[in-house]
Amino acid sequence: MQWLDQIKWDRDGLVPVIAQELGSGDILMFAWMNRDALARTAERGEAVYWSRSRQKLWHKGEESGHIQQVHEIRMDCDNDVLLLTITQHGHEPGIACHTGRHSCFFQALRDGQWSAVEPVIKDPATIYKA
Amino acid sequence: MQWLDQIKWDRDGLVPVIAQELGSGDILMFAWMNRDALARTAERGEAVYWSRSRQKLWHKGEESGHIQQVHEIRMDCDNDVLLLTITQHGHEPGIACHTGRHSCFFQALRDGQWSAVEPVIKDPATIYKA
Repeated sequence: MQWLDQIKWDRDGLVPVIAQELGSGDILMFAWMNRDALARTAERGEAVYWSRSRQKLWHKGEESGHIQQVHEIRMDCDNDVLLLTITQHGHEPGIACHTGRHSCFFQALRDGQWSAVEPVIKDPATIYKA
Repeated sequence: MQWLDQIKWDRDGLVPVIAQELGSGDILMFAWMNRDALARTAERGEAVYWSRSRQKLWHKGEESGHIQQVHEIRMDCDNDVLLLTITQHGHEPGIACHTGRHSCFFQALRDGQWSAVEPVIKDPATIYKA
């Protein structure tokens, strides 16, 4: 598809993706997509990423149930970064982070050190079943 | 400094950085920092990126006057992505994009094609002097 060809994929065939929550505007996570992941995301309206650590497609929420419904896909001026507007399903408030927090960006630089400044909403052990 | 050592720099010694506007929550841009850029950002309280195209430090606004004041620096759960909370100075409303738009993420996927959905606030030719 032509819109997929317009993206400047990096040397690994990936593009960085920012997931922003509809309504709150909170940045919930950052991940990567390859062409296949993005095509599936657009088709099903749910975020499908490329897991660099596992080297496979990762339908977010496939294990945790924390699906991300995609409302809009935006691209930056250089055609090499994507921004998703999403609703984080599976829990209220939404949990995007594998640590059981709302957002992956829970560490803030304070007085020269990183401090966890967001609460764990749910014990990760109860999110991911064995 | 220890907090800089805790970041997982990529194979090029860089970390991806998301710049989010204080108040509006708008994502204004996405760029990269190396260790030196981040140290300077933290020290001066203004965003200093690493320009991959020019291969040099890039104090955002050095040419355009569109300085980014940094209120907070956050890090994600994998220690490999940063999120800045900023105020975009130099124009009201803030212009972060070199195209003269508020945000770099002005292209939205609509009906299978990318459409520019945000207005140009200021002619780029008048932003960057020769």
